[in-house]
Amino acid sequence: MSSDMNTVHDWLNAHLTESVEELAQFLRIESVSTQPHHSRDVEKAALWLRNAFTAMGMSAELHPTGGHPIVLAEWRGAPPGAPTILIYAHYDVQPVEPLAEWTSPPFEPTVRDNRLYARGAADDKGQLWIHLMAIRAHMACHGALPVNVVILVEGEEEMGSKHLRPFIDAQCGRLAADCIVISDTPMFAEGIPSVLSSLRGMAYFEIRCQGPSSDLHSGQYGGAVRNPAATLSRILASLHGDDDTVAVRGFYDEVQNQAPADRARIRALPFDEELFKSEIGVTALAGEKDFEVLERLWKRPTCEVNGILSGYTGEGAKTVLPASAFAKVSFRLVPAQTPQEIERLLASHIAGLAADGVTTTVRMLHGGMPWSADVAGPAFDAAQRALTTAFGRAAVIAGSGGSIPIVRDLEDALGAPVLLIGFGLVGENAHAPNEWLSLNNFRLGAHAIAELFVELVQLPELAESHA
Amino acid sequence: MSSDMNTVHDWLNAHLTESVEELAQFLRIESVSTQPHHSRDVEKAALWLRNAFTAMGMSAELHPTGGHPIVLAEWRGAPPGAPTILIYAHYDVQPVEPLAEWTSPPFEPTVRDNRLYARGAADDKGQLWIHLMAIRAHMACHGALPVNVVILVEGEEEMGSKHLRPFIDAQCGRLAADCIVISDTPMFAEGIPSVLSSLRGMAYFEIRCQGPSSDLHSGQYGGAVRNPAATLSRILASLHGDDDTVAVRGFYDEVQNQAPADRARIRALPFDEELFKSEIGVTALAGEKDFEVLERLWKRPTCEVNGILSGYTGEGAKTVLPASAFAKVSFRLVPAQTPQEIERLLASHIAGLAADGVTTTVRMLHGGMPWSADVAGPAFDAAQRALTTAFGRAAVIAGSGGSIPIVRDLEDALGAPVLLIGFGLVGENAHAPNEWLSLNNFRLGAHAIAELFVELVQLPELAESHA
Repeated sequence: MSSDMNTVHDWLNAHLTESVEELAQFLRIESVSTQPHHSRDVEKAALWLRNAFTAMGMSAELHPTGGHPIVLAEWRGAPPGAPTILIYAHYDVQPVEPLAEWTSPPFEPTVRDNRLYARGAADDKGQLWIHLMAIRAHMACHGALPVNVVILVEGEEEMGSKHLRPFIDAQCGRLAADCIVISDTPMFAEGIPSVLSSLRGMAYFEIRCQGPSSDLHSGQYGGAVRNPAATLSRILASLHGDDDTVAVRGFYDEVQNQAPADRARIRALPFDEELFKSEIGVTALAGEKDFEVLERLWKRPTCEVNGILSGYTGEGAKTVLPASAFAKVSFRLVPAQTPQEIERLLASHIAGLAADGVTTTVRMLHGGMPWSADVAGPAFDAAQRALTTAFGRAAVIAGSGGSIPIVRDLEDALGAPVLLIGFGLVGENAHAPNEWLSLNNFRLGAHAIAELFVELVQLPELAESHA
Repeated sequence: MSSDMNTVHDWLNAHLTESVEELAQFLRIESVSTQPHHSRDVEKAALWLRNAFTAMGMSAELHPTGGHPIVLAEWRGAPPGAPTILIYAHYDVQPVEPLAEWTSPPFEPTVRDNRLYARGAADDKGQLWIHLMAIRAHMACHGALPVNVVILVEGEEEMGSKHLRPFIDAQCGRLAADCIVISDTPMFAEGIPSVLSSLRGMAYFEIRCQGPSSDLHSGQYGGAVRNPAATLSRILASLHGDDDTVAVRGFYDEVQNQAPADRARIRALPFDEELFKSEIGVTALAGEKDFEVLERLWKRPTCEVNGILSGYTGEGAKTVLPASAFAKVSFRLVPAQTPQEIERLLASHIAGLAADGVTTTVRMLHGGMPWSADVAGPAFDAAQRALTTAFGRAAVIAGSGGSIPIVRDLEDALGAPVLLIGFGLVGENAHAPNEWLSLNNFRLGAHAIAELFVELVQLPELAESHA
């Protein structure tokens, strides 16, 4: 660590409390992108963020889209020959329901046990804020960054990034970078920093079964009228085999075999299955028997029922034969599956389960391609060094079962390597009640990103020699 | 029709509008018995009803129970030797959800197309009111009734009549009657009055699957954690075979074969399948292939999914692996099935579907025995005559797929025949949004009940000669 960096690290330590308070302001904005009644909040978060970028010495603009705006910030004052780093993040958050399960309200950031609890704390406002702290530390100590930085922040990640794709294509030149850095994932484990080598893709559907034109008395009609909740249950049950594989015909046809080296690296990771189970409160895990837990999570495609609603679900008993039923069902994909192919296979699977008296429709809500990286390059080396310095422990290469569809789009459009450096933790409840971010990771993450900027200065030369 | 009765019928015709307005007051009280936040409304309905009885010249009392109160009204001024008629009804109503599907609010009674729309219009406040009109007409015209009348009105029919049973046992002497009359069912068809000969029983359950301790990110956990919504779907799908029979082992073991005469009577009824389908808005019916539609509805046991809830069910997509899932599932029973036996069979069926990582629990919310009547007695003859007089068309003997568990309890406890004379209509939405009662049936029903009192005067002698 150079003495130049000592002042940066000192600055970060000295400004920790202040930074958490600023982040809390950001977290208070209820920017739930998928819920129309929050659309003004989403807009507000974009404006707030633009102002934050401007205040820290970057030029920043709001780009309207057909949906929620994109915030683009730039600082291009690095010495000639220095690389350009593109940081991608999102300012939108997941819905907060079921609200009753939150210990403190989702939009009132609260610190407990050195964790910051709020919707968006980990996914992704808190992780974006780590980058902003690193930038401010460099600026405050040296009046400049060692690299050029472009920050691209969208408001539609949780709804499929529909408007970001055309924006990237249109602004390709302006977004051009030597390396893309994204912090929107958990670390491999507490104390073990990591860079990701893969993400699963996604195909998310709503399946709706419509029976009679309105709810019926289950006594006066039951036995002669097909029940759409029963039909939906049969469809959902048909999606898996008894061995926990996905039972949609053709689902595994495009799945590539894992490389032996990849498999060996995963099996060498210090995964604690008992801790994993206890963190989520289950006594047994499930899934495909031929694969280790981490392989099931990172390298195997899956199907999950995300929600079901039909009929009477209040207290007590109501003898209703429901008029309709719907489920939200999503598939996680691995190379070389595509959302379009899964949509076709699912439609055909469901058509095979047609039952007189109930009409079933399937609609894809969003999709994204899977992604995997070549980890043998100078960008990955730089990231591992920066993380190791900040956390005082060797960083590992890991996978993720989640989906950030835009990763692949950015990589394809800009032709630059993507570093997925997450500072969340397993159990952070990213899409559930009581989401939190470790304040220790918040601090160490900022040190790591500040180091990363320095480590990436020589990237252009190294990339040339690697190629 | 005697001239004595002419004045009664004239009185009824002259007081129709006024009676509907009084009923509307009763319907405005939100007496949803199964929802605790409505418990004061239920109490209010009981008080309102007691006052209504008192105002019409009956003695009336409220009997507190461990739940909602029972209202008991009596008039015992008939000539010596006249029989006593026990009228049973309920003043509680079904929940109103989903509220958005009501054209006019459920507790703001509204007349459209000569129908009275409100929760409870058909089930059962409106049908109780038909009896009260008949009583008032006799009292207004003759200062007396031809029979003694006891009216027993409970507030827990929609939640299983738990407290009524011990009340009946304790008050057996006071409730003693020669005939029990209940109007809480639909007529066979518009214009075709009917007396019921059977009701199905009921066993209503809540099935709950608990997985992880809180909702999880479906990407970060999907593939290694058992999804309770998927487990629940498998359980629900397992309840039926491909041929629409109930697939719980042993379910049909106690089902009695239908008597050939019974089967012939059902098949002779003027059932219009196309009308039935168009009323409920389906293009095809379902159910057991070996039985006619009316047999499936009245004489065959069934299983219905009444509701399912799990995970995210709001707008858009949320990638959650739900912590839990539950369903409400009910079985309709026929002689000689019992709720207790079905509970045992279901528990054993579900135990056979146990899956590691998800805990499934089954709880019976309520149960009731099936009922069938000996239709060859003087009470049934009297009912058919009264209905034929009022409606100008021969009444039929029909069945019902619904459940009124207290019917069998009353019959057993009091040893008197039960006449189930309904004035509702198919499509009345008794347990669904937009419940309604035909105002034509309301009027003709009051004429029929007024006639019935007269027809039943000779019941004690006739019953003796029948026995």
